[in-house]
Amino acid sequence: MMEKLQKAIEAVRPLDERAMEETRRRLDRLTKPPGSLGRLEELAVQLAGIAGTSELAVVRKAVVVMAGDHGVCEEGVSAFPQEVTGQMVLNFLNGGAAINVLAGQAGADVVCVDMGIKAQLKDERLISRNVRAGTANIVRGPAMTREEAVRAVEAGIGLAEELAAQGVGVLATGEMGIGNTTPSSAMLAALCGLEPEDVVGRGTGVDEAGLVRKREAVASAIRTNRPDSEDPLDVIAKVGGLEIAGLAGLVIGAAANRLPVVIDGFISTVAALVACRLVPAAQAYLIPSHLSEERGHRLALGQLGLDPLLHLGMRLGEGTGAALCFPLLDAAVQVLNKMATFDSAGVSES
Amino acid sequence: MMEKLQKAIEAVRPLDERAMEETRRRLDRLTKPPGSLGRLEELAVQLAGIAGTSELAVVRKAVVVMAGDHGVCEEGVSAFPQEVTGQMVLNFLNGGAAINVLAGQAGADVVCVDMGIKAQLKDERLISRNVRAGTANIVRGPAMTREEAVRAVEAGIGLAEELAAQGVGVLATGEMGIGNTTPSSAMLAALCGLEPEDVVGRGTGVDEAGLVRKREAVASAIRTNRPDSEDPLDVIAKVGGLEIAGLAGLVIGAAANRLPVVIDGFISTVAALVACRLVPAAQAYLIPSHLSEERGHRLALGQLGLDPLLHLGMRLGEGTGAALCFPLLDAAVQVLNKMATFDSAGVSES
Repeated sequence: MMEKLQKAIEAVRPLDERAMEETRRRLDRLTKPPGSLGRLEELAVQLAGIAGTSELAVVRKAVVVMAGDHGVCEEGVSAFPQEVTGQMVLNFLNGGAAINVLAGQAGADVVCVDMGIKAQLKDERLISRNVRAGTANIVRGPAMTREEAVRAVEAGIGLAEELAAQGVGVLATGEMGIGNTTPSSAMLAALCGLEPEDVVGRGTGVDEAGLVRKREAVASAIRTNRPDSEDPLDVIAKVGGLEIAGLAGLVIGAAANRLPVVIDGFISTVAALVACRLVPAAQAYLIPSHLSEERGHRLALGQLGLDPLLHLGMRLGEGTGAALCFPLLDAAVQVLNKMATFDSAGVSES
Repeated sequence: MMEKLQKAIEAVRPLDERAMEETRRRLDRLTKPPGSLGRLEELAVQLAGIAGTSELAVVRKAVVVMAGDHGVCEEGVSAFPQEVTGQMVLNFLNGGAAINVLAGQAGADVVCVDMGIKAQLKDERLISRNVRAGTANIVRGPAMTREEAVRAVEAGIGLAEELAAQGVGVLATGEMGIGNTTPSSAMLAALCGLEPEDVVGRGTGVDEAGLVRKREAVASAIRTNRPDSEDPLDVIAKVGGLEIAGLAGLVIGAAANRLPVVIDGFISTVAALVACRLVPAAQAYLIPSHLSEERGHRLALGQLGLDPLLHLGMRLGEGTGAALCFPLLDAAVQVLNKMATFDSAGVSES
């Protein structure tokens, strides 16, 4: 128990400074004012630091969509009924959801994982890592046991390992779990000592009364469970979710296997925050994607020092914002590989 | 004289409200909370309004990179020597610049246009619309005559027409012209009654002394020429640039031919602002791209009511930020075309 997690934590290394410096030097020889491609240049440097070389290639991509159900749905915190979690997972498997379309546009695979869906879905295309059939209602007690939290995190680590072994070169986080902005808000509040008003938003679209219920649920979940802000696993177990725990593990596993991981919206960012509380060195492997409409997202990004690349006013999850960033990663790599230098193009320097 | 411009202005029509309403209805039936794809949904609606149908397709794309030289370079307003304009145009033609790489990644053509380069470039791949061999120094007098300004604008209109006739379905604006943030700043100040301090930035990277020279050049250009803020052609002629005029024409021509046009950074946005002062109805055809590091860009975008999609801290021009937005347009179209509906996927609604 916890051996896999402990090993992954120890495997996370800092980025390769030499590869980053070499990449900066190469970028400064290209026919553009130094630094004028902004974040695209920073991405190239980060990717080189992760890969350990300035010889970058366009890589295989996968969006890992983890799904789980939430006992807190009993409190009326979502605009959608709980069975939609499983229904949407079938939609992912059949290729009809937004993430299928957006990942497809980016040439990325969609990897669907059952981390704890309530419905029993029999479908061989679904990767089953079901730790339990949904969390308990965090308003009344802990979401899961500490042991279940560790199992969910370790499942995520294992998946990152498997995908790395299959030759995937970059991961993105995605999730589906009706009600999951509520535990995410509770986790963010618990980890950072924030008030429910600051971290609770409308999710996929609750009305004013729903928003009030969400705030009350978060406040009550923290009061009832008293998660220990210094113990990320305690926070997951008491007020978290199974897919959120799985994504935290995926982030740790990505870093342990030297893969960059693109972080989607609010829920994914909270998962990344938990991961970085467990392994601060994992932060260097994170690539932010979009700024979600969800209220707590900006706060969660700030905690991780992440500045989003896309401002699209999205609030869907599934990994949709992360998938839209894949072309920017490819662009960063190709700028480094394909642009002419001042010398080769015969352009005068400043 | 001005007949082509007058005709294009009269050809610009409002967007098709029926196609937009039908697109909104279609989007709301897809398996996602209504509006949760944010700006991507707005893009689909806008593209439908422009195309006049909700049956959208992924279209051929072109970045039109217009180049011109600037007499104001005499004032030491750029970090690069003036001959770089022509050198970089050759780099574009040879495929070695950032815009070649980024347009290539998006599957877009790069169309290079000489609007007024000082050097005589003999290359059959370069489209020659050279109105004059660079502008005069705006600190000492007008950049060009009114007639030259009209010719440059009409050349842009003509190019949009030709590209539309060739089957291109979306345009992006790009430019190359050493020193061209200075006339762009002067145009923005003149059109909007703003102070040089607010609209002048570091361009491709001048130092503090260069910034002071740029501010003085802009203040002096406006004092000397007294451009009429109510007369966009006067502003172009007195303190503008040939590639900026050409891009203003391209925007008008795009709108007249019902093509969406993706607007790149500061210089492109000023060109779009001039276009919309000439034809306010053209505004509906604009698609913003990135928020540039250049100081005046946010102000220029605000004047057009444009909110940028990408926040990449870029300051290169060439159309690079616009090219990076093409995948978002394709994504918007494919969401509309490929996602399952609640009915077809058997997903419960909220």
